[in-house]
Amino acid sequence: MIRVLLIHDTCLLRTALATVLGREPDLEVASAPWQGAAAGYRTLRPDVCVVDMDGPEAGGPRGIGDLALRCQAPGGGGAALLALATPGRPGPLRRAFEEGALGYLSKNTSPDRLVEGIRHVAKGERYIDESLGHGFLEAAAMPLTRRELSVLSLAAEGASIGEIARSLHLSNGTVRNYMAAITRKTGARNRVDAIRISQGAGWL
Amino acid sequence: MIRVLLIHDTCLLRTALATVLGREPDLEVASAPWQGAAAGYRTLRPDVCVVDMDGPEAGGPRGIGDLALRCQAPGGGGAALLALATPGRPGPLRRAFEEGALGYLSKNTSPDRLVEGIRHVAKGERYIDESLGHGFLEAAAMPLTRRELSVLSLAAEGASIGEIARSLHLSNGTVRNYMAAITRKTGARNRVDAIRISQGAGWL
Repeated sequence: MIRVLLIHDTCLLRTALATVLGREPDLEVASAPWQGAAAGYRTLRPDVCVVDMDGPEAGGPRGIGDLALRCQAPGGGGAALLALATPGRPGPLRRAFEEGALGYLSKNTSPDRLVEGIRHVAKGERYIDESLGHGFLEAAAMPLTRRELSVLSLAAEGASIGEIARSLHLSNGTVRNYMAAITRKTGARNRVDAIRISQGAGWL
Repeated sequence: MIRVLLIHDTCLLRTALATVLGREPDLEVASAPWQGAAAGYRTLRPDVCVVDMDGPEAGGPRGIGDLALRCQAPGGGGAALLALATPGRPGPLRRAFEEGALGYLSKNTSPDRLVEGIRHVAKGERYIDESLGHGFLEAAAMPLTRRELSVLSLAAEGASIGEIARSLHLSNGTVRNYMAAITRKTGARNRVDAIRISQGAGWL
């Protein structure tokens, strides 16, 4: 029996998907939103965690990083991570890769493929959806440094140059230089365009 | 028998939800992405269209407006629209209301509630999820005019003041006045913040 914990923030959709997966004779399935991932992990002790990488919670403090730590902790049971991602958004794919996910599946696939993926990663085998191949190439070529991402995240929240500078202990000129580099590296026309491009790719 | 057409852009999730709905003895269910909504409508001749209002396609040329026209066309069968919406995002709720949706359900609900909602709207009865009540109040109080939304949409795509002005046949000063009004009315700190707030609410 493979114990599966499904993490998705939309109740209607995760319940439906868990129901469909739960009809397989070899799967025992529970589901939770990201906020409830830790509690779900403790209760079920899953073999596989199927995680929705889109949405802001996946990258947050109770997101994929926290869940990966639980999977890897001594006595944690060593659950395998299977990431659900959207083709064309390399950011979430990269986050899943950095946290050691074993499987990667496009959300444009069928529940049957997901069942297949679960069985593979439960055996410790890597499983990668071919339609995500291009996304992996893009994810590898992430154009921005960690510092530039911090600057751009604050800008996307509406912070001014001065506010960003104070928040990151930089001079206004340095922040302007970062913004210019970000705009150039993302191929954007201006600051707003750089935010739009980076959000679309899921870097932010 | 109630014929249900489920529109959602994520294959994995719409397939799972359609499978769960299809187990009800009185429901016949087909599903499609927004791009395939028209074809799905012609094939199934549904009594109820369950539509995901989030995502950019729902507001696009082949989105809710086009589907509503099909439902209302003479000989179109008069399918009822049941909108799936996210609490706290009044924009999509407002679009569904403007297109005459009969039912409104939060995505944080259970598949059972969705089945209940489908049966209600199939009888021509209004069905509104109480958890969306606050969203309706916000949707009614949409702060921006249609013109201001056009200006802000172009700004969100990265257009400069000059580009927005040329595109809408306005002077640069008029565009600046619109941007100032938008920033004030959304309670934003600046232009980027106004874009962020409006995208969060689903106005854009």
